[in-house]
Parts: sequence; structure tokens; C-alpha cells
Amino acid sequence: MTDRKIPTKIYLEESEIPRQWYNVRADMKTKPAPLLNPATGRPCGFDDLTPVFCDDLVRQELDNDTAWFDIPQEIQDYYVQFRPSPLIRARQLEKALGTPAKIYFKFEGNNTSGSHKLNSASAQAYYAKKQGLKGVTTETGAGQWGTALAMSCAFFGLDCKVFMVKVSYEQKPFRREVMRTYGADVTPSPSNTTNVGRQILAEHPGTTGSLGCAISEAVEYAVSHEGYRYVLGSVLNQVLLHQSVIGLETKIACDKYGIEPDIIVGCAGGGSNLGGLISPFMGEKLRGEKDYRIIAVEPASCPSLTRGTFAYDFCDTGRVTPLAKMYTLGADFIPSPNHAGGLRFHGMSPILSQLYHDGYMEAVAYEQTQVFEAATLFARTEGILPAPESSHAILGAIREAEKCRETGEEKTILFGLTGTGYFDLVAYQSFNDGTLTDSIPTDADLAASFAKIPPMGNN
Amino acid sequence: MTDRKIPTKIYLEESEIPRQWYNVRADMKTKPAPLLNPATGRPCGFDDLTPVFCDDLVRQELDNDTAWFDIPQEIQDYYVQFRPSPLIRARQLEKALGTPAKIYFKFEGNNTSGSHKLNSASAQAYYAKKQGLKGVTTETGAGQWGTALAMSCAFFGLDCKVFMVKVSYEQKPFRREVMRTYGADVTPSPSNTTNVGRQILAEHPGTTGSLGCAISEAVEYAVSHEGYRYVLGSVLNQVLLHQSVIGLETKIACDKYGIEPDIIVGCAGGGSNLGGLISPFMGEKLRGEKDYRIIAVEPASCPSLTRGTFAYDFCDTGRVTPLAKMYTLGADFIPSPNHAGGLRFHGMSPILSQLYHDGYMEAVAYEQTQVFEAATLFARTEGILPAPESSHAILGAIREAEKCRETGEEKTILFGLTGTGYFDLVAYQSFNDGTLTDSIPTDADLAASFAKIPPMGNN
Repeated sequence: MTDRKIPTKIYLEESEIPRQWYNVRADMKTKPAPLLNPATGRPCGFDDLTPVFCDDLVRQELDNDTAWFDIPQEIQDYYVQFRPSPLIRARQLEKALGTPAKIYFKFEGNNTSGSHKLNSASAQAYYAKKQGLKGVTTETGAGQWGTALAMSCAFFGLDCKVFMVKVSYEQKPFRREVMRTYGADVTPSPSNTTNVGRQILAEHPGTTGSLGCAISEAVEYAVSHEGYRYVLGSVLNQVLLHQSVIGLETKIACDKYGIEPDIIVGCAGGGSNLGGLISPFMGEKLRGEKDYRIIAVEPASCPSLTRGTFAYDFCDTGRVTPLAKMYTLGADFIPSPNHAGGLRFHGMSPILSQLYHDGYMEAVAYEQTQVFEAATLFARTEGILPAPESSHAILGAIREAEKCRETGEEKTILFGLTGTGYFDLVAYQSFNDGTLTDSIPTDADLAASFAKIPPMGNN
Repeated sequence: MTDRKIPTKIYLEESEIPRQWYNVRADMKTKPAPLLNPATGRPCGFDDLTPVFCDDLVRQELDNDTAWFDIPQEIQDYYVQFRPSPLIRARQLEKALGTPAKIYFKFEGNNTSGSHKLNSASAQAYYAKKQGLKGVTTETGAGQWGTALAMSCAFFGLDCKVFMVKVSYEQKPFRREVMRTYGADVTPSPSNTTNVGRQILAEHPGTTGSLGCAISEAVEYAVSHEGYRYVLGSVLNQVLLHQSVIGLETKIACDKYGIEPDIIVGCAGGGSNLGGLISPFMGEKLRGEKDYRIIAVEPASCPSLTRGTFAYDFCDTGRVTPLAKMYTLGADFIPSPNHAGGLRFHGMSPILSQLYHDGYMEAVAYEQTQVFEAATLFARTEGILPAPESSHAILGAIREAEKCRETGEEKTILFGLTGTGYFDLVAYQSFNDGTLTDSIPTDADLAASFAKIPPMGNN
């Protein structure tokens, strides 16, 4: 098929949307290590997890062997509101860079949640409804995940209880109002509606909250209220399974038009987007059918893959969750206050961590002023104002395209554009004003943080 | 073609995007009245307008006879970044309403400007570049039009000078930052960079500005700087011509899938979206080939069609522009301060005004609390958070669908969803908090405003 026949923006037909998710764990020779119950130090089983999570989701979480999971019809019916997402050739960006490389991006931001988070929120809300639950709880920082969950709960008819970090609740009210418009109950955290919240408020009356505290409140609310479970938007194996729809759609579009990516680039925080985008390509690589360079891009201010240690650690700063084996900066690690945008989780998906450890992917870290430069170039050439998170992938793709300019190679570069920056204008303003700065943790910072990683599972 | 084969979200192929704009004036038996030069009282000709506007745009403005204008290749190359836009079946909304009606909407909001405004901004920026100009100037209130223009100027490589009403510049900084990210120079108005700005600042030192003042500054800057022209995002005939791409795409999609709208609904402020959406359908109606009910929906707080008078009036509160014959509330009319969102222009496109006057379309006005109720229902069912402006059309479509529920008629209702509400969360918050109120101008208010309409052209 000739290049001319490929549209700039490829939309699959609705009938081509995948009907199964792909579980990359099935093709991994070394499986991701199991979660550990912090009370016993033993691997978490079904019964350890179902008080907190929905039954079907726990089954998905624990299943390392089933390669394909059917996507329920109810989720497919919902998909048509936000899928298929387009695969777009970045022709104007290529021209601006003067590169012989072909750059494609899979754009997941054209929905009201503004990101790929809907792919897992839709599934988690559906399974909660299927189980006959009344509602779900979660935590949210700036509100991207909370918004996706609120939308999905509105669609399936579920209560949605969101604990939002108090400082975001007060200073970033816009996503809060989107959640409320979709019917979610949004509570600033810490709150006096949970024991843990009351305790923290008593100890620190003026606190503006933290993600760790909001997680603890959301979990407590779920386990102490009949008919509620807790849901989470990244890191977990189940989330990567749901997000595989990104990569599967991309693969179908590539195969349909004869596009053969050489390099696949994604931003990485907890790993939900990157894990989803690369899934089917990684599957081919694991099975030895094809080779791809796969590059995770993370912020230099929160460099879990490039500077973290591969160890069992808690998933939250509050240390109430199971332990996961992953690249971690230590559960106490908090990025510098001048870090804008997301990608601020201290660890990385256990699946991606194992794949990185086994040499199936690369990782790079960039400072945020470079990232916003790339974001601005992308906005002006391709017309889409990208999320700061997604802009890490943009910069990763640009760096590879610049190498092609040097070597003359016509490589095909694919990256994931996870979302839009419409709720990140405070960060853009700092960049436009020239006041955005970088900060990289010192080796001493990281050593202090590593020292607090518990011995459990690491002996 | 059976109903089952129609996708929920219809995307045309890129090759199906229209290559010509349609000029509905060519099929109007009574043409819209010409603009009058306020200095002479005589119809504006080419030479009256070219000091302010680009030459090609003036030709389009004055041409009542040419039915089809070729869309330059350069604009088509830009279109692929934001066109085709989807035509979507609102199945979940239909279900929630329990109506036998089929509801379709043409969604123009899936781009960073968040609205249909890019359709004309792209054309106006292109013609400015083609004329060899350095840049363009404009005014903006909340920033929707300014954002679209900034994006288009970045694409074509033009300076973009935006005078933004000072109160919006300070209190609604987010769209300002989008414009700056696209390289626009955004100046709070009134400013000390123009004579009119300095004069107003001297007379009213604490003023927070007005759209009328920002227009005057933008026009002055354009006519007093070599290589600049002024551009405008609504009301003008040329804008409706560019916006005809909305209706043409819709018509192609309808014809492709055998969809036959009975009723077409659009929100109406200056008329750019409604005029664009209905163009080809109105053409068929004018030529007697088909009949459609066409409904303009406007805010009860700014009811130019439903309560205005059809007369020559100034297009701006500053009274520096030509006079246009249109339905007007008087150039001094300002909607009540509790009016949220746009659709706040005192007049209506001369083309739409003439068509309404001649009985080719209907108009209704709704209060904003009803409009936000409709917006919330739409968001929860169809997943898209709509702009307050667009939500007027949603409510119009819902009202017609409810009538079908009463009568059992399976009518096909088409409406224009012009944009998203991501930058309108302050208004949503008022609605969510129950503090949003309505206000309707009294007959005495309007009579006082009508009394100031100048006699010129109205004798």
C-alpha cells in the first residue's frame, strides 16, 4: 500500500474496535511478582483482595496465564462514546523538525475526561455494576482519574465517591465541577467522614492533604460501607489489561495500512498508558515474532525506572496497600514541589518493571522545561494542546526523529498522546512566563528514600 | 440502507471533506441588505472595507451571487487537523428521554479551540497570509474566537494580536494562556497601546473593559500598522460562508447513510454556527426542493430574533463599524450580568435575519437554568460536557424529542453541538451549587434600547 493512501488521521470503523483485551503477562517468561499481603508477607490471593476490589477485577488481577479476555458487550456499547481513538500522522511536526522519520501518535484525549483513563474506568465501573454494588470509591489528585470514573459511573448508574486531595479540591476546582456535573460526590481529603481522616485532621489541623491520605480514606470508606468497593486508575495488572485496547486498536490500524513502527514511545507514571499502548507489540517481541525499540519516558523529577531500585515496596505513602515488586523510589518519595503535571507516582507497574528488568524496553528521563518546549512545538504544529504528562512522550519521539535527521534513516516512530492540557494551564502559564524550573533528586535524596523500603519480600 | 448499518459516530473519509463552500445568499430571493458606511449612509463597497479587512474576504463579504467558492488547498491541508467532525447519534439521550425520535448531533468541539470557530479562523488567517500581510488583530471576550485565531495564525505563520477584555484577561486566564502558547500577543483592553485605549483609560481609570472597546482597539491597531488587518469571528457574511463546511459535511454524511432530518436546531448568538450548519439544507428549502423545520435557539437574556427589531444598527457598542440590517436589541444592549456563557451579541447575522424575516426559520428563547439542566442530562448520557452556548441547541432538540414522545412520531432531529464546556466550569459550578439564576429583559428595557437605534437606513 502506498503512502499516499494512508489518511493523516486514521479512524477505524466501529466494527473494528477490539472485542477482547490482551494480557501481556501470558507471554512473559518471567511473570511479574505477586502482590504481598503486608500482614502475612505471603502472596495475595482472591480472598485477600475481594474485600477491597470487585470480584471480576481481582480475577483479572491475579491471572498471569489467560492471554485474551472478552470485552463485555455493555462496555463495548459504552466504547462508542470515546473509541475508536484516532491514529494520526504528525506531518507538520515532521516538517518542522526536518526529519525523514515518519511520526505517528495514538490520541486518547478526545473525550471529556481528557485522557486514556476512561478505558479502565469504564471497565471497573461495569464490573462493579455487574456485581450488584451500589457504588465505588477512589482518590484523585488533580482529578483526571476521578473525572473518568465519574463519567463511567454516570453511564452505568453507580454511586461515585471521590476523595480529592484538599489542596486540589480548593485550588483546582474545575475538574471537581466536571465530576459533580456527572453526579459524583467529591469530598476534600482529609475529611471527617472516615476514621483515618478524623485522625489526620486531629494531628494536623491545617493539612492540605496528600494522595496517600486520600487513598486511605477511599479504601476505608469502601470496606466499611455495604455495597462499595475501591477502584484505582493505574499501576495494577487489571488496569494494563483494560488499557491494552489502546495498543490493539493501534495495531489494527497499522496492519490495515501497512504501517510498521520501528520505535514505540510512551510516557510512564504508574504505567497504565504505556503498558496499554505497547501490549500487543510487546507480545510479538516476547514471542520472538518481531522486534521493536520500546521507550518509556519519565520525568527527571520522578525517575522510577531510570534511577529507582527493583524491590518490593508499598504502593502508597500511607502504607495500607499490598506490597508490589516494582521499580520504586521509595513509598515516601515525593517529587519536588515545582514538578508540574502528573507522572508523580513513586513506583512503576509490576508488569512494566519486570519487562524493563528483563531488557525488553528502554527508559529515559527528561526535565520539564524541555518537555514544555516540546509541548509548545507540538501544539503549534499539530494543533493539539497536549497534557504535560503526554508531552514527555512527544519529547521522546522528537529526540528519536532528530537522530533520524542526523543519520538520514526513515524510521517509523509511534508514540502515545494520552491526553489534553486544557486543565493544566497554570503549568503552561509558568512556562510562558519563564518561571517554570527543573529539579532532579540528588543521589543522597534517593538513598534516604530507598533506606525506608521495608525488608518484606526483599531478602 | 437499514438503521443497523449506520455507525453511532459517523466520520467521513478525509477525501469526502467538502472542497467548496456554499454561499446561501446565491439562492435567496431577497438578498441580505448591504452594510452601510456610517459616514455616508451609502452601501459599503470594496474600497470602504479593504482598509480594515483582507481583500479576498471583502470579495466574499460582498458577493451575493456566487453559489460555490473553492476552498484553497492550503486550507484543506489544515482542515485535516480538525475536520471531518463526527455526526453522532445520541442513542443514550434518546433512551433517557423515552422518545421515538432519532437525535443526531454534529460535534464541532473536538479541537483545542473547543468550538467551530476554527472553520472561519483558518480561512481568515489563510487569506491574510496569501495577501502577504504580517499579521491580524481581533478582540476576544472569554477567548474562544481568540484561541481559534491564535491556532490558525501559528499554522500559517502570522502575527496574531488579540485585545482581550481586561476582566476576562485577569479572571479567566486559561484561554489567555492557550493563546500565548500558540504564540499570540494578548493585550488586556483597554490598553495604552492605542489612542482609543488611552482615551478610555484617562476617562475611566478603573474600567475592566468591554467587547466594544476591545473591537475599537483591534480595528485601530490594524488600520494604523502596516501589514495588519482586522478579523472577526461571527455575524459577517464571509464567516457564514466559511462555516458552511459544517452543514456540507453533515449533508454528505446524511446522504451517505440515508438520514433525512425533519428538524434542524442550532444555537444562535451572532449566527456563525447556525448559519453554517443549515446552509445546504436552507439552500434546498429556498430552491423548493425539500422542506425542513429550522429552529434557532437563543438565550432568553439576549433574545435578538424573538424580541429584537429588524433594522439597520451598528455591529458594536462603540459605534465604529458599518451598519448592518439585522434583528437587533440595540447596540447598547448588554445582557444581565448573571448571563453565563456566550450568545451575548445584540444583533444577528444579516443573512439569518433576512431568512427569519422571510419565514424560512423559527426561533425560540430559553432561560439558562433550563439550559444547564439539559447540558447536565446530555453530559451524563452522551459523555460530552457541552459548552453553555451549545446547550441551547441541546435543549431545543430535547423539546422537539419530547413532543415526539407525546405524538409517537419518529422524527429525525439534527442539532449542532458547537463546542465543549471545559473553560466554562465557573458557570457549571454556579449551576451545581444552585446559585445560577435567570433574567429576562423587560419590555421597557428593550424599548429604551431600541430608542437609541440610529435613523440611518431605517427611514
